[in-house]
Amino acid sequence: MATSPQADGESGTVFSAETYFATQPPPSSLEQDVARVKEFLQRQLQDGRKVVLVTSGGTTVPLELNVVRFLDNFSAGTRGATSAEYFLKAGYAVIFMHRQFSLQPFSRHYSHSTHPFLDFLEIDESSQSATSASSPRITVRPSEEPQLVEVLSTYKAVHRAGTLLTLNFVTVNDYLWLLRAVSQEMSILGRSCLYYLAAAVSDFFLPRQKMSVHKIQSGKGSLHIEMDQVPKILKPLVAEWTREGFIVSFKLETDPNLLLPKACQALARYGHQVVIGNDLHRRKFEVVFVSPKSSSSSASQPSAYEESWLRIDLNKDPHKEIEEDIVAELVKRHEGWIRNAT
Amino acid sequence: MATSPQADGESGTVFSAETYFATQPPPSSLEQDVARVKEFLQRQLQDGRKVVLVTSGGTTVPLELNVVRFLDNFSAGTRGATSAEYFLKAGYAVIFMHRQFSLQPFSRHYSHSTHPFLDFLEIDESSQSATSASSPRITVRPSEEPQLVEVLSTYKAVHRAGTLLTLNFVTVNDYLWLLRAVSQEMSILGRSCLYYLAAAVSDFFLPRQKMSVHKIQSGKGSLHIEMDQVPKILKPLVAEWTREGFIVSFKLETDPNLLLPKACQALARYGHQVVIGNDLHRRKFEVVFVSPKSSSSSASQPSAYEESWLRIDLNKDPHKEIEEDIVAELVKRHEGWIRNAT
Repeated sequence: MATSPQADGESGTVFSAETYFATQPPPSSLEQDVARVKEFLQRQLQDGRKVVLVTSGGTTVPLELNVVRFLDNFSAGTRGATSAEYFLKAGYAVIFMHRQFSLQPFSRHYSHSTHPFLDFLEIDESSQSATSASSPRITVRPSEEPQLVEVLSTYKAVHRAGTLLTLNFVTVNDYLWLLRAVSQEMSILGRSCLYYLAAAVSDFFLPRQKMSVHKIQSGKGSLHIEMDQVPKILKPLVAEWTREGFIVSFKLETDPNLLLPKACQALARYGHQVVIGNDLHRRKFEVVFVSPKSSSSSASQPSAYEESWLRIDLNKDPHKEIEEDIVAELVKRHEGWIRNAT
Repeated sequence: MATSPQADGESGTVFSAETYFATQPPPSSLEQDVARVKEFLQRQLQDGRKVVLVTSGGTTVPLELNVVRFLDNFSAGTRGATSAEYFLKAGYAVIFMHRQFSLQPFSRHYSHSTHPFLDFLEIDESSQSATSASSPRITVRPSEEPQLVEVLSTYKAVHRAGTLLTLNFVTVNDYLWLLRAVSQEMSILGRSCLYYLAAAVSDFFLPRQKMSVHKIQSGKGSLHIEMDQVPKILKPLVAEWTREGFIVSFKLETDPNLLLPKACQALARYGHQVVIGNDLHRRKFEVVFVSPKSSSSSASQPSAYEESWLRIDLNKDPHKEIEEDIVAELVKRHEGWIRNAT
């Protein structure tokens, strides 16, 4: 019975997490990804490093098995990619689980649309390459060199240290399977692991059993889509998969009046450590941390939560990234969480 | 009456192109884009260059005015970005009208996910930069230098010649307004302009009047979406906006049995010059050109069309791009079209 979704009268089908995983197929790359995660975590455990899972970018909901059309969630992946860099700088090992082709740490500085690297490379026809006497040497425009040297040095150092593991997802189904598997693996780290769930995950999905095989044809009037709710994955994440992890989730709203109530509701429902609330139009310079008031994580009354606003002034310092302060605050709170274990 | 959409009984609302533009607002960047197009076309006209409009990437259909969720069409933009390079090589000036952040000519060779440029740059601590005695010089890994020199040289030459104009769209509404404006401007070139409509355009949209202002809340059961049909934009494009242009549209299907019937249907309905049909899973090595059999473009019987398959063998030459042959064939047909003007 547990594997059969429940119809809830007028509003369609509700899947529990258990039913979801029993009825929806895993992505084909899951086993391979899990093997990479295991190896990565073993190394970090040996080195005594804290590990953060950063999820980033939007998930898709394909409408067809041979996918031509899909529902998507708006996210370039800026929050996740930027935060990953600051976590690395703070000494964490990072599992960067992101939507394919969304922004990534380091390369995010060189978007092909807004800051294309081809624009600041030059061909120096006069000089001769040390390695090949006939080919011209490529040089970097002097004004761009300092930033590129900095980004490149950090990028190379991170790769040498082996502290960044990158995983991909596309669909919300990929995301759910991967999150479950990675969090189960990460639980071996106990309190030393942090979850930074910045991906923009769809609240709705189309069960495989309801998808059309081929491209939906137009010319037959309007398009009707009916989707089911994605199970609330934070519930088993907190209660079963990774009981000791420090878990940070995000709430994005466009109506400022909903931000705090929705954040408190999430904490009451799932019992995790922090919700970071952000408004779609203010998220680059303002976020709010909402967390249980006491050190206990079992508070269930809305009055039991405290809010703490974090703001930066982009007029004063246009290059400041709010993720620097978000990560600094979380590193502090995570240290407290580890100390309180005893 | 022309500006009021018609209800067609059970299947929602049908918009004519005229009604569409009378009821949906233009994108805010339209005027600025049109000014850039005008200036670009004047220059090409003076230089006597043929001009191709390449559309590329998928369009979105936002579900909310403060957009968090949207419907999208699958397309990385490979077909368009690759073809644009071959059109430039063939001497065309190119208006590259693409989905924001989809692949672009030249930078497409250096995807941050599959071929990140940071991986093949090195910091040479030993050498001293000519411009700054203290900073290390950045060098390109020798194995990557030949390709980078080639891509970079072409990129710089195209920029010097001023033969590439890049325009962005995100939503299907952006796309429709921009396509109309650009094609009206391009009509001054008469038969010297080519339309290569490779973008994956949504067949459905949500009229602004039906969109919710804020993020649709979950927790209220399943999601129901009902969308209207996008007007068939090829109709006014062929019949009104650019009567002498050579127009190539694309059909992507996942059911191989639908490919030819759908291509013929499009030619019969719009009376343009070529439909390139491609199957989702074979599109990298096989396409079919469908066109009217006679030199007349007014054929309206399905028997009046001829098909011509174009295939490449990726086993023999894994680096061959089918767009090279597609563009070569179209350049030939476009020359015939120009000759037949008299």
